[in-house]
Amino acid sequence: MPQKVRIALDAMGGDVGAAVVIPGAAISHKRHPETEFLLVGDRSKIEPELANYPALKACSRIIHTEVAVSASEKPSQALRRGRKTSSMWLAIDAVKKGEADVVISAGNTGALMAMARFNLRTLPGIDRPAIAATWPTMRGDSIVLDLGASIGGDAHHLVALAVMGSAMASVLFNLKRPTVGLLNIGVEEMKGHEEIREAAELLRAMNLPQLHYIGFVEGDSIGRGVADVVVTEGFSGNIALKMAEGTARQISDYLRSAIQRSWRSRIGYLLARPAFQALRDKMDPSKSNGGLLLGLNGVVVKSHGGADAEGFAYAVDVGYEMVHFDLLTKINQMLNRDGGALVSAPAPQEPVS
Amino acid sequence: MPQKVRIALDAMGGDVGAAVVIPGAAISHKRHPETEFLLVGDRSKIEPELANYPALKACSRIIHTEVAVSASEKPSQALRRGRKTSSMWLAIDAVKKGEADVVISAGNTGALMAMARFNLRTLPGIDRPAIAATWPTMRGDSIVLDLGASIGGDAHHLVALAVMGSAMASVLFNLKRPTVGLLNIGVEEMKGHEEIREAAELLRAMNLPQLHYIGFVEGDSIGRGVADVVVTEGFSGNIALKMAEGTARQISDYLRSAIQRSWRSRIGYLLARPAFQALRDKMDPSKSNGGLLLGLNGVVVKSHGGADAEGFAYAVDVGYEMVHFDLLTKINQMLNRDGGALVSAPAPQEPVS
Repeated sequence: MPQKVRIALDAMGGDVGAAVVIPGAAISHKRHPETEFLLVGDRSKIEPELANYPALKACSRIIHTEVAVSASEKPSQALRRGRKTSSMWLAIDAVKKGEADVVISAGNTGALMAMARFNLRTLPGIDRPAIAATWPTMRGDSIVLDLGASIGGDAHHLVALAVMGSAMASVLFNLKRPTVGLLNIGVEEMKGHEEIREAAELLRAMNLPQLHYIGFVEGDSIGRGVADVVVTEGFSGNIALKMAEGTARQISDYLRSAIQRSWRSRIGYLLARPAFQALRDKMDPSKSNGGLLLGLNGVVVKSHGGADAEGFAYAVDVGYEMVHFDLLTKINQMLNRDGGALVSAPAPQEPVS
Repeated sequence: MPQKVRIALDAMGGDVGAAVVIPGAAISHKRHPETEFLLVGDRSKIEPELANYPALKACSRIIHTEVAVSASEKPSQALRRGRKTSSMWLAIDAVKKGEADVVISAGNTGALMAMARFNLRTLPGIDRPAIAATWPTMRGDSIVLDLGASIGGDAHHLVALAVMGSAMASVLFNLKRPTVGLLNIGVEEMKGHEEIREAAELLRAMNLPQLHYIGFVEGDSIGRGVADVVVTEGFSGNIALKMAEGTARQISDYLRSAIQRSWRSRIGYLLARPAFQALRDKMDPSKSNGGLLLGLNGVVVKSHGGADAEGFAYAVDVGYEMVHFDLLTKINQMLNRDGGALVSAPAPQEPVS
């Protein structure tokens, strides 16, 4: 466990940039004073923000660059234009050079994936990184991966996801042996893609001491919290994530418009407001902000581009936890134990160009 | 347009069987008096129910069998055991023999798919049937398919789904040229599986007069109602469906428990009750009950197994509409026009054995 956790921030990432990143870092720093920050980006935008937070300023260093990756850039464009110059690249590079333990960016996801992969390289036995995030459920949080880093992949890819996701769960939820389920369209043994059935057999046969494979789970089981970790390839993982977000928004929009329709309902709403607030807090995406790019030689955290300072602070917290409780060592231990099985996995298809 | 719509019902299907099927038929019959019913199942269970509905009884005929497909049977088992004898088979067979225009069952989905496909065969140019259903959105209902009839499939399979789904939308929503989107993990041209990009090119090139292809849609766009028809292969379609159902249940469970926590909230809830009722009505799965098995030489409707009489009546209504507005002719016209492109589609993988 390192004495201080050294955090590199892409200060230009996200819809707002430094005006969210710096206040967000200040919030997280109050919760974890044993941190140091590398703030990467345009000095003229970072310094005025930093002036408001003397405690943060005292443990921060600025790496100046005026180049920022834009939200609309394709990963290949971002790499061409922003390699070795952009705030995103330089923040990742700080991890590569050992100047930081973790990098956090709210910038362009595809570009972050591409740059992190290009610069940090994947762990032995891992062909492509995955995106994992916490998911609010009826029984606390779960972790779901891959949320869209790569499309498709064979049984070995799914097993690698299971290993990495359970390492993340053991760190984040302090669990000895997280339960792991494979997302499928039915719980019967015979359903689903061939590779999912094969992954199920592998996970059963491996019988790892660090994870407890519990079988197939269906989409509606994620929210019930039936497994600490739910594993799927990136296409269906992304569909699942967007469906959950979209349905939640749809329901809240309906309810709002239904409540507006009568005075009685509006008064009722005012009285029941704490209940609605509790629901909002529980479902608040910023409270589960901080997707982890897993499978790299370094810890990379992706914040929502639209997160506010509070939301960004959660992403910084996630990065802190992962370093503090040594995620990479845990993943490597599990991969080395079963590296043979994982090394042979061929690369799944690229989702973005 | 036929004079009378002749409806065959699997009277033993669903969690309850005749005690839901018969009252459900009676509700739908009131809405559409120009219908006739073939009630297939155990006479000793059908007759006592039917005695309560003289108007329905007057236009019904019973086909007796004591064999019923159980919910737990695998499709292959159901075919072996229930072929030519079960209520499900005989109800489908009534369509095959021209004694009925449509069959409705609340029974085992996999068995219904297998029996319908085996007995009715697929339309020319269609290799495997799909399951389509209406989906409540912020702007009225949409249709989503395939919800899990088959897994995977190439670009031609996706195009066939688009054609069949838009025929269904034109019948159900009375639209001349429904908008169609392909479900994908990003709206940019370069994202997603190769076959989805290829299907997009095909749909653009075909430029059909009966459907308006609008591009890729993401999971969270379904609920916003951005397209009348959303097309995806069965694995991700089923994940999407289950995620939406699960998230809706999760939110309502949260809200209920949050409201229970204080007297003030409970009183507020009582006042705002009409708003909650409106939300429940809107999201009520029984109101969008009636999945359609598309791609067969016959109209087959699947009701939720757990539907009550009101829900089952909606499924009967869907069957009625499809016959009344001649769905099959519409699909065949579209397929024939572009049959060449569709005939070459290889069969996707079976989801169940």
